[in-house]
Amino acid sequence: MSHPARRDTLRALLPASGLDALLVTDLLDVRHLTGFTGSNAALVVAAAPGDDLLCTDGRYRVQAAEQCPDLEVLVARPSAPAAAARVAPGRVLGYDSATLTVDGLVAIRDAVPGRRLRRAPGLVGALRAVKDDGEVAAVAAACALADTALRGLLGDGGLRPGRTEAEVARDLDDRMRRLGADGPAFDTILAAGAHSAVPHHRPTGAELRRGDLVKIDFGAALAGYHSDTTRTFCLGPAADWQRELHALVDAAAAAGRAALVDGAEVTAVDAAARDVVEGAGHGPRFPHGLGHGVGLAVHEPPWLARTGDGRIAAGNVVTVEPGVYLDGRGGVRIEDTLHVVAGGPAVALTGLPRELVEV
Amino acid sequence: MSHPARRDTLRALLPASGLDALLVTDLLDVRHLTGFTGSNAALVVAAAPGDDLLCTDGRYRVQAAEQCPDLEVLVARPSAPAAAARVAPGRVLGYDSATLTVDGLVAIRDAVPGRRLRRAPGLVGALRAVKDDGEVAAVAAACALADTALRGLLGDGGLRPGRTEAEVARDLDDRMRRLGADGPAFDTILAAGAHSAVPHHRPTGAELRRGDLVKIDFGAALAGYHSDTTRTFCLGPAADWQRELHALVDAAAAAGRAALVDGAEVTAVDAAARDVVEGAGHGPRFPHGLGHGVGLAVHEPPWLARTGDGRIAAGNVVTVEPGVYLDGRGGVRIEDTLHVVAGGPAVALTGLPRELVEV
Repeated sequence: MSHPARRDTLRALLPASGLDALLVTDLLDVRHLTGFTGSNAALVVAAAPGDDLLCTDGRYRVQAAEQCPDLEVLVARPSAPAAAARVAPGRVLGYDSATLTVDGLVAIRDAVPGRRLRRAPGLVGALRAVKDDGEVAAVAAACALADTALRGLLGDGGLRPGRTEAEVARDLDDRMRRLGADGPAFDTILAAGAHSAVPHHRPTGAELRRGDLVKIDFGAALAGYHSDTTRTFCLGPAADWQRELHALVDAAAAAGRAALVDGAEVTAVDAAARDVVEGAGHGPRFPHGLGHGVGLAVHEPPWLARTGDGRIAAGNVVTVEPGVYLDGRGGVRIEDTLHVVAGGPAVALTGLPRELVEV
Repeated sequence: MSHPARRDTLRALLPASGLDALLVTDLLDVRHLTGFTGSNAALVVAAAPGDDLLCTDGRYRVQAAEQCPDLEVLVARPSAPAAAARVAPGRVLGYDSATLTVDGLVAIRDAVPGRRLRRAPGLVGALRAVKDDGEVAAVAAACALADTALRGLLGDGGLRPGRTEAEVARDLDDRMRRLGADGPAFDTILAAGAHSAVPHHRPTGAELRRGDLVKIDFGAALAGYHSDTTRTFCLGPAADWQRELHALVDAAAAAGRAALVDGAEVTAVDAAARDVVEGAGHGPRFPHGLGHGVGLAVHEPPWLARTGDGRIAAGNVVTVEPGVYLDGRGGVRIEDTLHVVAGGPAVALTGLPRELVEV
């Protein structure tokens, strides 16, 4: 969908929110609606398309004109108050209270004393949660690249006792870059042995040892979009407890993926996987939500968790990533990124096998 | 300085701000005060050290206990409201309005209806702006690593006609990683020819050509700290206008560095460099501030700009980075990171030569 078409979609939602215009300050929201990629911007989406306005500072004057030939560009700092000041007095101007800071709001209030400002969180986020074909293709390309990188690591014997967590993580990151990624989508988690029981462990100089569970949570950034995948391996033959733990998480992930369908409550998708873990008596050892949307941000709506609102919709691109972590022993997480389609099961964009691999 | 000592320094500032406790929600502020590096946390610094509290979620239970053995750790989500709820009713609880979102504040208000919440922006930021010896050493190490990477690029002939901007940027990034950097401190800017006139250009597939100005703005991330350097080269012999432009920016940078002393107004430091550019009639072509603090964040207080408050203090680590950009022709920026010391000129932590190098 073109950027003007995205703004028109948003524009059509303004009346139902009681807004005459929306001030968009989150940079990824701005990028989604305009294509602008600079590090400072505010966008006004108004009732009339001709009143739309992008405000940035002098560093990005040329870039904004190139990336947004279809938009009026105002060069001013601070940009959000300057953009807000272009909305006529008396109009109701919404802002994204989920991302705007308290001081940011105060600055806008001071700059436009006559305007009526209204909290309007997540309007653009809700649009971004439903991906068009180009966006799904972009996430799929990032996932395929990440898959290839991990296959290469395994095929070249890169995951082996004696290497450190940090070495293996860097190797994987380098492989993604050589395959054309802009970089890792986030700091790669590579956690071996007892470290695998730390959900968000940072790689250390600890050496991988035979018998370790090795959890790898990684993604590629490519053309503004991201992937997110986790696989957990065993170095050498798995012990019974490792095999059972992996099978439990695998079953939970399968249940979560099966529940990830158009129209499902986000809490129900989480519950489908969590019930499997709780049924095995490990509920307290699954201390995070089941998943999250993936797109311009690695973590974005919809959120699959025990609490929350809303339903899954066709076009969502979401991770399913249950994990069970046994303190001091090891943990397993299995994560895929999936595309929700109408009238059928979600399609995994990540293609790595899920059975326990003994390296 | 130890993390408890940093919290004690902050604690001593609370009465003057009329606060009984401060809720710290910015993750780098939390890291500075506790050492905790997870992606979700809120910290209460209270009047009594024993009432300090770190709140995070279940993913980081083990990590928080390891990184913060000296702190009570509460595992709860959402973490900021849960932390705020531990402050006794009737107390005045400050929050960092510069980073807390409007919805974040609303969630806290809803969770602690009896507390008195007060805007207290930048308290920890002001502490972070004055680096201790260990922090200066950390930035200096990142700067030295980045210097070495760029020297290697030049020494190996990596900056040459026929390579693309993206290839050279990736080469430089790879060199920083091989030297031990955690990664680039930010997306490397590598801009050749007319692109060098775009202050924050992103590297493209455009090939470098003989006669181009090539602007390289890059940094290394190392152990949580950062460097930030810009140099502008000429591919082959420089034309007169390129030489004059470089000399102008070099003179502006020298004036800025000379003005960067303990006690100087931040606006005066900016003006010292800007006056040089304006004196040459290029004022409108220097469309950004002169510099910024560097530390746990690549961009942090103090801010050197035309507008702003405050003075430079010994212990600040700040960039000086004037630039002049001629649309369609090319631009020059020269940037160093410097350490402000008492009773003398600031010490450059970046060590690359500043004269125009014709590659």
